[in-house]
Amino acid sequence: AAHGARKMEDYGRFLALLASALLVGFVSVVLSLVWVFQYRGGLSWDGSSREFNWHPVLIVTGFVFMQGIAIIVYRLPWTWKCSKLLMKFIHAGLNTIAMILAIVAIVSAFDFHNANNNPNMYSLHSWIGLAAVIFYCLQLFCGFAVFLLPFAPVRLRAALMPIHVYSGLTIFATVIATALMGITEKLIFALQNPSYSESPPEAILVNCLGLLLVIFGSLILWMASRPHWKRPPEENAKILRPIGATPEGTEAESTMTHTRNADKSDPRSNTEAARKENIKFDEAGQRTTM
Amino acid sequence: AAHGARKMEDYGRFLALLASALLVGFVSVVLSLVWVFQYRGGLSWDGSSREFNWHPVLIVTGFVFMQGIAIIVYRLPWTWKCSKLLMKFIHAGLNTIAMILAIVAIVSAFDFHNANNNPNMYSLHSWIGLAAVIFYCLQLFCGFAVFLLPFAPVRLRAALMPIHVYSGLTIFATVIATALMGITEKLIFALQNPSYSESPPEAILVNCLGLLLVIFGSLILWMASRPHWKRPPEENAKILRPIGATPEGTEAESTMTHTRNADKSDPRSNTEAARKENIKFDEAGQRTTM
Repeated sequence: AAHGARKMEDYGRFLALLASALLVGFVSVVLSLVWVFQYRGGLSWDGSSREFNWHPVLIVTGFVFMQGIAIIVYRLPWTWKCSKLLMKFIHAGLNTIAMILAIVAIVSAFDFHNANNNPNMYSLHSWIGLAAVIFYCLQLFCGFAVFLLPFAPVRLRAALMPIHVYSGLTIFATVIATALMGITEKLIFALQNPSYSESPPEAILVNCLGLLLVIFGSLILWMASRPHWKRPPEENAKILRPIGATPEGTEAESTMTHTRNADKSDPRSNTEAARKENIKFDEAGQRTTM
Repeated sequence: AAHGARKMEDYGRFLALLASALLVGFVSVVLSLVWVFQYRGGLSWDGSSREFNWHPVLIVTGFVFMQGIAIIVYRLPWTWKCSKLLMKFIHAGLNTIAMILAIVAIVSAFDFHNANNNPNMYSLHSWIGLAAVIFYCLQLFCGFAVFLLPFAPVRLRAALMPIHVYSGLTIFATVIATALMGITEKLIFALQNPSYSESPPEAILVNCLGLLLVIFGSLILWMASRPHWKRPPEENAKILRPIGATPEGTEAESTMTHTRNADKSDPRSNTEAARKENIKFDEAGQRTTM
């Protein structure tokens, strides 16, 4: 009963954070629209600065908000009864939409620059932003090939999963950093009389948008990195085996990286090390089972 | 023997990453000095733009490079024979120096603005940068009070450690994002004829500095988040106890957050859950033992 109460409390905490992240993300999207419609003439696709306005709107909506949701989608407790395969499709689908929106956002910036004979790719914002999009596409492609298609052996999946998680979170943080640089650039260039340094209402509004992006990113990173909010392992991965017994040869090797770690626990009996190994193997299984 | 070889390989991988991080961090510091001395008139403390030049140099040296090293200092394998207390002093000491350098860096920017009647605190860079410094000071203060002073009970340490780690890494990433905004601002304001958009050598140099900061941050985050590179637990924390038996009442409670997790593993025997619990407890112990 005490465990159950703690479980509920933990569930409530997750929901509270999720609600906060959704609220902050939603308000960010609204602020990007207010910025563009209230202060920058709205949206169109005609080579004018109103075409450029798609850039912040699509980046905030797709590359920040939607990517953030895609990152935590496995952790929504009510999806745990859905198959892992379905959740992989949702994860990949949201990321694919985010990628398309990011590419359209970049095209709108290039189009605007070209129509007005502004140079492209000179700023740190453009350098890091382009690198982030390229890495995002690579990540999506590798994730599709390794974790969604049925060809990769379990040991390869287990070995690549930590890299996939790390790259995903690092790219996400880099995208937010790039958005902050973009906001800085745009406010300096667009605000004249009053200038950015005179803090007109538009400057305050868009600074607040930047702050919200940082808060959104922090919430997503917290939710994505708590081990006890992970999707529970599939039933077939829960069957514990002694460390020597391996029904499939490939799976034995997937514990390789963990074995190094077990080395350190010298005062423990071998049996204890084997048990620990089993649990770690179980965790790897959870992440690689389709 | 096979385990030993894998251990060595893993050790070599850690050293290669450490060498890369040190190299990238060192080159970043050099580039910030080249920027300031080659293109911006050098350093002084006289209210001129040469006083402002301390700002990027101290931020890159202290708030990025030194903070990055402070983050991974527990993971250097040759420090594992040193006492945990000594390592805590080194971790806290490096962070304190970084904090002082960051504060001096901020003072140099304010001083320069005030001497030239430029407004303060209008940009997104200044908002997020000031917030980062405030959170960094809070983090240092809380870390000192909870983990270095001997008063906090073990269960409080265990409960706060994941928050301390998360906050530390998030603040570090935010500091790098703020540095990128600062670079963007400074290049736009300082470069006139040729402007930033004409990509003069200074623009290329400082864009490269920004790229190196992102690479440095990515390397530190990778090294700080690999579980098998953690400092091994102290000897006294390695003694495993059955979940009911608790020599000190406080320590039993430190497993509270983990117990929720064990709830989920219903198909496992209670003994298995208890074993898993013990291992998790061991990990908490590792992080809280002085």
